[in-house]
Amino acid sequence: MELKDLRVNGKRLQKTLEDMAKIGATPGGGVQRLTLSDEDKQARDLLVKWLKEIDLEVTIDEMGNIFGRRAGRNNDLPPVMSGSHVDSQPKGGRFDGILGVMGPLEVLRTLHENQVITERPIVIVDWTNEEGSRFAPAMVASGVWAGALDRDWAYDKTDINGKRFEDELIRIGYKGTVPCKKSPLHAYYEYHIEQGPMLERSGKTIGAPKGILCLHWYDIYLEGEANQVGPTPMEGRHDALCAAAEMILKVNELPERMGGNMVATVGEIQNYPNSRNIIPDKVHFTVDIRSWDDDLAIDAWNKVSDDFKQIAARRGCPLRMEETWRVEHSPFSEKLVQGILDTAAELGYSNLHMISGAGHDASYMNQLAPTAMIFVPSIGGRSHVEIENTTWEDCTAGANVLLHTMLRSANEK
Amino acid sequence: MELKDLRVNGKRLQKTLEDMAKIGATPGGGVQRLTLSDEDKQARDLLVKWLKEIDLEVTIDEMGNIFGRRAGRNNDLPPVMSGSHVDSQPKGGRFDGILGVMGPLEVLRTLHENQVITERPIVIVDWTNEEGSRFAPAMVASGVWAGALDRDWAYDKTDINGKRFEDELIRIGYKGTVPCKKSPLHAYYEYHIEQGPMLERSGKTIGAPKGILCLHWYDIYLEGEANQVGPTPMEGRHDALCAAAEMILKVNELPERMGGNMVATVGEIQNYPNSRNIIPDKVHFTVDIRSWDDDLAIDAWNKVSDDFKQIAARRGCPLRMEETWRVEHSPFSEKLVQGILDTAAELGYSNLHMISGAGHDASYMNQLAPTAMIFVPSIGGRSHVEIENTTWEDCTAGANVLLHTMLRSANEK
Repeated sequence: MELKDLRVNGKRLQKTLEDMAKIGATPGGGVQRLTLSDEDKQARDLLVKWLKEIDLEVTIDEMGNIFGRRAGRNNDLPPVMSGSHVDSQPKGGRFDGILGVMGPLEVLRTLHENQVITERPIVIVDWTNEEGSRFAPAMVASGVWAGALDRDWAYDKTDINGKRFEDELIRIGYKGTVPCKKSPLHAYYEYHIEQGPMLERSGKTIGAPKGILCLHWYDIYLEGEANQVGPTPMEGRHDALCAAAEMILKVNELPERMGGNMVATVGEIQNYPNSRNIIPDKVHFTVDIRSWDDDLAIDAWNKVSDDFKQIAARRGCPLRMEETWRVEHSPFSEKLVQGILDTAAELGYSNLHMISGAGHDASYMNQLAPTAMIFVPSIGGRSHVEIENTTWEDCTAGANVLLHTMLRSANEK
Repeated sequence: MELKDLRVNGKRLQKTLEDMAKIGATPGGGVQRLTLSDEDKQARDLLVKWLKEIDLEVTIDEMGNIFGRRAGRNNDLPPVMSGSHVDSQPKGGRFDGILGVMGPLEVLRTLHENQVITERPIVIVDWTNEEGSRFAPAMVASGVWAGALDRDWAYDKTDINGKRFEDELIRIGYKGTVPCKKSPLHAYYEYHIEQGPMLERSGKTIGAPKGILCLHWYDIYLEGEANQVGPTPMEGRHDALCAAAEMILKVNELPERMGGNMVATVGEIQNYPNSRNIIPDKVHFTVDIRSWDDDLAIDAWNKVSDDFKQIAARRGCPLRMEETWRVEHSPFSEKLVQGILDTAAELGYSNLHMISGAGHDASYMNQLAPTAMIFVPSIGGRSHVEIENTTWEDCTAGANVLLHTMLRSANEK
């Protein structure tokens, strides 16, 4: 068989994903595999077993990242790498992350059974703690590997029960001895569900994001004056929740006001004392602004934070605003992105040049080497929920595109 | 000394309030005496000791209500009653409730030391669980006494830790044997801090509310669609928190829209999954509407609930609305209210004919007998907070008005 006719085994990929979905399965049809939990350990054990079955050289680094290396003809050349994460959100879905590990596993199984030898080595990776929902922030171990984050800082992170990251890593037996440190890469591919509705809306199978949006996080703290609601006239009230409500709507209107190319969201709010007959005197809420255009996002924040100040002043509610996190937009390698679009077309899959609104481990790899991502449709655009779903057909299509883009990169001299 | 020259002992009242404020004292200068807690028991024990010191006949009923009866010349006549509650909000203040028990105690001490005999008996009362913050709802034991609520239903209420009301009543030794059942009353007076800013704003010392506002409680449940915020375009989102924000502002604008004579508040909100990078898919919030005009309050609800339906439809967020509680407005005895205003004037205190926005045990007594309340100023209008405060001078003024209004009623044949 010619190399160009090689295809992954869709049934095997489906079975692999189904077997993984049993680990941490939730009654609602999703999975809960919080990082460094017992379920994460089970998923890692199964992954390592599968990696060894196809003779990969498995190493675990000191952040618990799992690497499976397949030798090439010339092992002095930097490898092609692909991976994602096996951890999940609390009550997450059966595709987010895990598809990006089972996908390259299926690619390597296909190469293995067809005895295909590539010029360069190929490495599959499971990055520890991509989700960040047990230990904040997200994408922590790929960040340490890339040199962007500090290992000991990550070790000292604690979960809601006060358990330390490093202690939990040791407990599940995945604190390796290999330093968590970048090494040269020829290319990095991450295969992932879209987690949005754009592919489905446009009726396309394969998405190639030109990069990842910038991500700006803010935390807003408002004060009001708590009083019994009955005896306190409307006039002279300082209701922190009403001030927050005005601000939430300002955030919601921001993308339209800025002319599009942006999303802006308030996802989290805490209200105090949160009693039905007491005027709220303390509110905290978050703001998440994302755009392909970093300056536009900053401009948007400047506009909306001016609004916040005016609203706070008018309602007599002291305001504190914190800039919690800013990540610049991250354009992927144009060559690799084009390669994905071309490969999809060659394989007969409809495809879309798009952008990724979500951050991924690929964000950090993109700082080190040519990087790109392959997206497949999320049904209804749903993600981070138990009903997250992608058809088996689309899973197979994405794995075939991954197979041929990886092959092309891995055969570059 | 002529009866009209009789005055309470302000220093003694202050000392009594200060002693009570030590029980359940909080670092922030308030008190925490949740109903049927150890602190409630301590406060009750001290109250009973004080009642016995002035030879009152103390009885405890099966709801834990504490009565202290002072005989009159004609003990066949229905008594004059005055009281309030010794329990507090979590992190509540040193005046709410307790002033309405220590006030009549000071009145009875004054009558005792001056050997004043009234025509009718006088009864002081501490009503169990006025606040309702440990066991909902509020004003429960005065409600049972009035025949408006069922004793066994109240017994079965549980706190957040699953402890039963009746079990806790037994545990602190205050489940009495006397049936909790109304008996004829000639008049009921409740002395209380205003819990609002109207007296302070108008520079008056004594307030006589013409009654209590109606109280309408609603619970609103919204659904949205949870998705990762980054990859989900603004168009087509179903953001339950944005829908709630619009509704909260509609509630806030309602009193002005209805032409005043009303307060409307959202005090409580829960948002799910409450994660900064997930679009909210479930929100619950409360609505509290109060007015002197029951029909106006109903009309306001009809208007705002129509708005809610439109907002929910426009944002594609399914809406459920529950009518949780409705209490009609409760006008007090005009004669007693006028008596309070006249007495205040005779004693040289500035006074205000007003309304009470908060519910009180007096609400239930008002169903049984001529009832009125005496208000003194809350500094800054603050209440249900640790910094709740009233000057000792105003506490004394209110007690003197209580003394003379009670004397007048108690000497009616």
